[in-house]
Amino acid sequence: MKDKDFISYLNSPRIKDVSITDALWKKYIDLVKDVVVPYQWEILNDNVDIPVKSHAIKNFRIAAGFEEGEFEGFVFQDSDVAKWLEAASYVLEKYPNPDLEKKIDEVIELIGKAQWEDGYLNTYFTIKEKGKRWTNLEECHELYTAGHMIEAGCAHFLATGKTSLLEIVKKLADHIYSIFGKEEGKIPGYDGHPEIELALVKLYEVTGDRKYLELAKFFVDERGQEPYYFDIEYEKREKKSHWPGFKSLGREYLQAHKPLRQQKEAVGHAVRAVYLYSGAADVAAYTQDKELFDVCKTLFDDIVKRKMYITGAIGSSAHGEAFTFEYDLPSDAAYAETCASVGLIFFAHRLNKIEPHAKYYDVVERALYNTVIGSMSQDGKKYFYVNPLEVYPKEVEKRFDRHHVKPERQPWFGCACCPPNVARLLASLGRYVYSYNHDGIYVNLYIGSSVQVEVGGVKVLLQQVSSYPFEDMVKIDLKPSKEARFKLYLRIPGWCENYEVYVNGKKEEMQKLPSGYVCIERLWKENDQVVLKIPTEVKMVSSHPQVRSNVGKVAVVKGPVVFCAEEADNGKDLHLVFVDVNGKCKLEFDSNILGGLYTVEVDGFRMAEDDFGEELYKSHRPKFVPAKIKLIPYYAWANRGTNEMRVWLWRSSF
Amino acid sequence: MKDKDFISYLNSPRIKDVSITDALWKKYIDLVKDVVVPYQWEILNDNVDIPVKSHAIKNFRIAAGFEEGEFEGFVFQDSDVAKWLEAASYVLEKYPNPDLEKKIDEVIELIGKAQWEDGYLNTYFTIKEKGKRWTNLEECHELYTAGHMIEAGCAHFLATGKTSLLEIVKKLADHIYSIFGKEEGKIPGYDGHPEIELALVKLYEVTGDRKYLELAKFFVDERGQEPYYFDIEYEKREKKSHWPGFKSLGREYLQAHKPLRQQKEAVGHAVRAVYLYSGAADVAAYTQDKELFDVCKTLFDDIVKRKMYITGAIGSSAHGEAFTFEYDLPSDAAYAETCASVGLIFFAHRLNKIEPHAKYYDVVERALYNTVIGSMSQDGKKYFYVNPLEVYPKEVEKRFDRHHVKPERQPWFGCACCPPNVARLLASLGRYVYSYNHDGIYVNLYIGSSVQVEVGGVKVLLQQVSSYPFEDMVKIDLKPSKEARFKLYLRIPGWCENYEVYVNGKKEEMQKLPSGYVCIERLWKENDQVVLKIPTEVKMVSSHPQVRSNVGKVAVVKGPVVFCAEEADNGKDLHLVFVDVNGKCKLEFDSNILGGLYTVEVDGFRMAEDDFGEELYKSHRPKFVPAKIKLIPYYAWANRGTNEMRVWLWRSSF
Repeated sequence: MKDKDFISYLNSPRIKDVSITDALWKKYIDLVKDVVVPYQWEILNDNVDIPVKSHAIKNFRIAAGFEEGEFEGFVFQDSDVAKWLEAASYVLEKYPNPDLEKKIDEVIELIGKAQWEDGYLNTYFTIKEKGKRWTNLEECHELYTAGHMIEAGCAHFLATGKTSLLEIVKKLADHIYSIFGKEEGKIPGYDGHPEIELALVKLYEVTGDRKYLELAKFFVDERGQEPYYFDIEYEKREKKSHWPGFKSLGREYLQAHKPLRQQKEAVGHAVRAVYLYSGAADVAAYTQDKELFDVCKTLFDDIVKRKMYITGAIGSSAHGEAFTFEYDLPSDAAYAETCASVGLIFFAHRLNKIEPHAKYYDVVERALYNTVIGSMSQDGKKYFYVNPLEVYPKEVEKRFDRHHVKPERQPWFGCACCPPNVARLLASLGRYVYSYNHDGIYVNLYIGSSVQVEVGGVKVLLQQVSSYPFEDMVKIDLKPSKEARFKLYLRIPGWCENYEVYVNGKKEEMQKLPSGYVCIERLWKENDQVVLKIPTEVKMVSSHPQVRSNVGKVAVVKGPVVFCAEEADNGKDLHLVFVDVNGKCKLEFDSNILGGLYTVEVDGFRMAEDDFGEELYKSHRPKFVPAKIKLIPYYAWANRGTNEMRVWLWRSSF
Repeated sequence: MKDKDFISYLNSPRIKDVSITDALWKKYIDLVKDVVVPYQWEILNDNVDIPVKSHAIKNFRIAAGFEEGEFEGFVFQDSDVAKWLEAASYVLEKYPNPDLEKKIDEVIELIGKAQWEDGYLNTYFTIKEKGKRWTNLEECHELYTAGHMIEAGCAHFLATGKTSLLEIVKKLADHIYSIFGKEEGKIPGYDGHPEIELALVKLYEVTGDRKYLELAKFFVDERGQEPYYFDIEYEKREKKSHWPGFKSLGREYLQAHKPLRQQKEAVGHAVRAVYLYSGAADVAAYTQDKELFDVCKTLFDDIVKRKMYITGAIGSSAHGEAFTFEYDLPSDAAYAETCASVGLIFFAHRLNKIEPHAKYYDVVERALYNTVIGSMSQDGKKYFYVNPLEVYPKEVEKRFDRHHVKPERQPWFGCACCPPNVARLLASLGRYVYSYNHDGIYVNLYIGSSVQVEVGGVKVLLQQVSSYPFEDMVKIDLKPSKEARFKLYLRIPGWCENYEVYVNGKKEEMQKLPSGYVCIERLWKENDQVVLKIPTEVKMVSSHPQVRSNVGKVAVVKGPVVFCAEEADNGKDLHLVFVDVNGKCKLEFDSNILGGLYTVEVDGFRMAEDDFGEELYKSHRPKFVPAKIKLIPYYAWANRGTNEMRVWLWRSSF
């Protein structure tokens, strides 16, 4: 269904065609299937005894006329249900489950009942502000909420072949198409929170109906044009605000300060930004819009070279949950929202489909191996919204400018965007591990798994065995249904210098392509085996010198995995811990921590404090005592109670 | 008029009896006399073309019935007039000036006309919320505003001998006495913002009327008692707030979380805290309340040992303009309000009067030589409210959690507490330089000046010549009206190890007393000379290791003067500048900077950044190039346009 002449647009495999077997990732996939999706369902139904109630299903029941009551929750509360449906559909696609399917069918029926005759669907504007539809696009997330429902409809159709939700969202999208546009009588507006754009492209992919693509393109292009639509509607509704003070956030907050094609810097609310850019990349791909694609690449570069934490997190400021400016990446004040890393993965993944390059999956890896899985507790029932790189619990407790940081994961949130976002990403992880097109397969991530794809008319089963990045070797077995010539692209991470490639036991000298992949083209036979060695020695890395908060500090990484020091292993006062950059890093599997974790021990020092005395300021030459510093993967932090944590540690010398 | 049996309570000299001649300080005193007081008068009368109008005098004209109009400004706007009157009275006391006296008389007449028959005086509750008097003590600063007027009345009486304002404030204080107290029918409340306490003690000092002291003691003791008065009045006024969200600041914000006598830590709004503690110290002194005095000392220690910036600034958080917790002293996020340093001086000065100790004036010096004079531009017309120790202009512009920091001084503020506070402090500086009692004179500050005091019935003229702390030698000439035995106490700063004392050219081996002063007791004759050498070599100092934001950093000081690096002298990116702690510090008088300043040049390095490339994170060993780092006194920062500034600089080695 996609434009054949946009040559490099890669396919993602179907979820059902990928089986993840990886020791690290299988655990998370199973957690999503067995715990997260069922648990979040109970939360959406208000069946879990936690301080924050969702009310999201109840809103649908009220809107559908099954119950009396008031709307509760945020104006975009419906999107929690939509994202859950999407995640649940992905689970269902891979793991047929009649009970889950029944729940899904029931909630789809309920959603259908809450939909208006004309296709409109939104419980807030059905229950609470009837008659105010489409009057506050800037603040009220109507198209955003619709977008999530559309994504759910596509996912459900692809998972089950059922059209029940797809028909609902087509009707919704058709309604939106009838309302929005440049034509006389239509609203020349767009949503304050991008999302509809990428959702409409998904609907185009599923239905082949080009009007959805057109509408997505309209939303992308109209954003930030003059006259400024959000001011027009603001005047029309007599300057009434849904969120007091919203206007003070400014136009950059929602990436509408100028048309996207003129934007060169990632600004504003980080989630909005990467959702918008993802939609724009989709539009660029399917309309072969090189200009728009170049804008996307510029914005991606701006994020990755100047505005991204080493953990793949983005958003340096709690105010506006936003980007601030280049190289402003404070570890302690970070916003680093989980959803923003999920959105960054969406964006990078799309760019890679258009013009494959290892750098995109370098970013996907950073976000996945650190912020995304780090955002969820090991039991799948608690979540981080904000993912700081440094926590000093007393600071979090006592400083208002750290009030957004929680030192421990929370059971739920009033604004619960993040938990289902992680669920839908992990439940569809298989789609990110591999890409393919008519003449080759791309291995983007080294996650133990198998995939079935069709390349040039030949069915290929690819089986990957890997403990990357904790071990160096990746084994790939290929089983084409018959001998076939095609290309196997293996991503070489940007930080990797000395990879080795073996084909059927024989070392091959393989140069990286300009794309950062190596390409093995041959006539593949049943039981061909490729081995890739990616040395992922533990390294100490520095930040660009313009990152003010990391001057004099190093972080310890192994491949994409970032390590951190926790008080649980190193005692209090991590600000007194110094790493010996000339010392050794010792990787160990420690079966005593959290059910077993790879840890790193580095040599270092601890600054003495008992020789300083009571004064606050004086001439003093600090003393140091040798210390072993124990580090755990960042993704495992905060699973042992409230304690200090630091990713960036002082270096003891230069 | 004070209790004779509270032995160590020292007197301060009258302002008219001290003449400041010091090269550094005379400039500021003259600035206050010639520019600040006249300029602020014009501002109070809305005659200066600046974006923020005061409206303070106009409020009095409206309240007095001379004009129609609305109240404008903050609920405590009257206090700007009161503080100006106090400052102007101090100027007048030293420098008779018929024009200024006429202005003062006129505004006093106006104030008298605005006073109610019963003594009540407050333009906000006269114009805007008539009938709401004393219903919102927590938020509305009525007693605070009264306190400032009382301070003005005392100052005016002492300066001129006129009772015009004194009578007004006595009537006001009598009214307050009739309203507040534990007795049946009285309000058992106190002000959300302390100030009335120390003001009432001043009124007691001036009038000898002990009821004012009693009332001050009542306010000190009642604060924080249960049942909690601020909740009682809140319920009574049906939970109406003057400032939306005020209650969320909590009880610690206004030091009412428990009775003061049970408080051991300085918490909450820093200005409120030090005003309260100052009043409490006064009450302790005049009621010989050792318990209360010990509480004051504990709180002082908590500030000075754990919560004070090296510049004598206090208040680590913009939220609540408040203390946070021990050792939390971020340079960039500092609130460090000018008024808080002024209040800290009030507090330290009072403690020193009760139980003289050099440590109190160590703090006075820190605050005076850095934050206080640094808060005012060199032309006396622009002011800092917030006094950060590190500014990166883009951060201030782009990060909301730095929105309180201004990289340049401002012409005025909506809440204009700071500028007149500095004016009244500097105009009365003479009172801080010396203290005395019946048998001795204390030299607290080494500021070139002369003072006339009476010691044991003998008039003594003391003349001090000093360029401290830029030069080491302090010369003191004593001229008693007749030969007399008394003690001369010289404060030895806490950081000073090798002082030398010479009497009439002969070196004396003088041990410091436990108080940190040296005491020379002799029969003083006309033309006796004491020379004190206080070596104030330039030093690099470290912070206590628990100050997380200063780990690995040093500050350069000379005596109490803290130096800073500015972009104007060192180029951009001060975060890349490293000080060689083994290098030399070269003091130089640079006549090219801001009309001449002592500067320090230190050896150091600059971290190279051009070898890093475009990536954000990678293995890297930074390169350094030698650099000379030029430092200027902190008090002179931000007089050359918006630029980077840092007090705490990286050390290149340990």
